[in-house]
Amino acid sequence: MNLILLTKDDLISTDQVCLTGRRHHHVRSVLKAGAGDSVACGMVNGNMGYGRIQDMDSQKLVMQVTMNQPPPTSIPLILVLALPRPKMLRRIIQNVTALGVKQIFLVNSWRVEKSFWQSPFLDDDNLVQYQRLGLEQAKDTVMPDISKKRFFSRFVKNELPAVSSGTRCITAHPKTEQICPAGVNQPVTLAVGPEGGWIDLEVKTLEDIGFDTCAMGQRILTVETAVTSLISRLFV
Amino acid sequence: MNLILLTKDDLISTDQVCLTGRRHHHVRSVLKAGAGDSVACGMVNGNMGYGRIQDMDSQKLVMQVTMNQPPPTSIPLILVLALPRPKMLRRIIQNVTALGVKQIFLVNSWRVEKSFWQSPFLDDDNLVQYQRLGLEQAKDTVMPDISKKRFFSRFVKNELPAVSSGTRCITAHPKTEQICPAGVNQPVTLAVGPEGGWIDLEVKTLEDIGFDTCAMGQRILTVETAVTSLISRLFV
Repeated sequence: MNLILLTKDDLISTDQVCLTGRRHHHVRSVLKAGAGDSVACGMVNGNMGYGRIQDMDSQKLVMQVTMNQPPPTSIPLILVLALPRPKMLRRIIQNVTALGVKQIFLVNSWRVEKSFWQSPFLDDDNLVQYQRLGLEQAKDTVMPDISKKRFFSRFVKNELPAVSSGTRCITAHPKTEQICPAGVNQPVTLAVGPEGGWIDLEVKTLEDIGFDTCAMGQRILTVETAVTSLISRLFV
Repeated sequence: MNLILLTKDDLISTDQVCLTGRRHHHVRSVLKAGAGDSVACGMVNGNMGYGRIQDMDSQKLVMQVTMNQPPPTSIPLILVLALPRPKMLRRIIQNVTALGVKQIFLVNSWRVEKSFWQSPFLDDDNLVQYQRLGLEQAKDTVMPDISKKRFFSRFVKNELPAVSSGTRCITAHPKTEQICPAGVNQPVTLAVGPEGGWIDLEVKTLEDIGFDTCAMGQRILTVETAVTSLISRLFV
C-alpha cells in the first residue's frame, strides 16, 4: 500500500478523515506512523496528496488531508479480456489497474469455463476491492470501469465497433507470425484470450470488425504475464 | 503445460521415454491424449519436438520421441534480483524463465528480510521446479542458471563487474526521473530491488561499477509486475 485510498464516506469534516480496519492497521503496524506524521493519500477518482495524523489509537485514526496533485496519467488502452480463471482474476485486475488501464471488458469465450461466471470473485464488491489494491500499489486514484459481457458474439458485433472506434484494434493470438507492435503512439483496444487462446471463429469475428492478430514471439505466456508484457510493449 | 519437459532419466531406449506422476497425469487427464496421439516434448537443455504415445495405462505412459527443433532464442539479459518474499519467488522465477531469461542472481539487500534466506522455497530442488514450470509454459528447454549471493556489497564489487562486462547496466529504481530505455538492441544486466526498492547506498554501489538508474514512470509496480514489464520494454 503506497497510497491510502480514501472515499467520501471517510470524511468527518471538509478536510478530515477517520479510518478504521485495513487502512488504520497499515498506517499503524506497517508504516509505524504516529500523531504528527504524514502519509500519502488519495481520494477515489480525485486528487492525491498527504494526510497528517492528528490522533490515533488501537481502533481508529484521524488525519487532516491536503490533496492538490492530480493522479498519474492513464494509458489509452481498452482491454477486452476473456474472463480468467477466478484465482487469476484477482491478480490480473490488480495488475492492469496498477499499470494504468481504465476500461476493461470481461468477456466470454469458447474456452472460458461456464462456472467462472458464477464465481464470487466476480462480484462487484470484489472487483472494486482488486481495483483498490491496484490503485494503492501504483499510487493512483482513478478506478477503472469494468463491464461483464456474457455473450461474445453479440458484444463484439453490436457494441465493440463503437467502443473501439478511433483506436488501433489488436487481437493477441499466439498462432500468428505478426509480432505485436511496440510503442504505438495512439489509443489501443487489445483483445486477450483465455488460457489456450481464442478459437478461430472468435479471431475471425474480431477480424471482421477490424482487429489485427498479433503474437508475442515464440514463447507462450500465461494470461497474466502476457497482459503485463503486451501493455508494457505497446506503451513503452 | 504446453511442452512435456523430459530429462535423460526418462529415457528407456535411445528414442523412448517412460513417464509417471505429474507429466503422465497431464497427458492423460488434461490433454486427454491416448495411444497413437502426439504431444509436444523437449529435452532439458536440448532440442524440442514431439512424442508419439505407444502405450499408456493409469500408472505410466511410454512415448517414442523425435526431437529435431532448437529451443526458442533466449533474451540477452542477466537479471540481478533482490531475493523476493518466498511466496513471490516461485511466480517470479517461473515468469522470468517463461520470458526467456537464462542467468539470474538472487542477491541480498537491506530491505530483504533475513528469514527469506532460510525459506525452503529457495532450496535448489524447488528452484529447479519453478524453472521447469516456466519452461513447460513457454515451450522452451534451456534451464536458467540461478546463483544465490548472500552478501550484496561483496558480490557487486568483486563479481558483478566481470559478470556484467560488455552489457548495458541498469538499476531499476522508482526514485529517479530517467525512464527505462525501450528496445535496447544489446545485452543488458538489470538490477531489480526488493519491495520498497534498493536503499541509496545500494544504488550508489551499483552506480560505482557503471549501473545507470532508471524508473518505469509515475506508477509503483510490484516486483513481479515490474520485472515482466521491464523485460518486455527492454526487449521489444
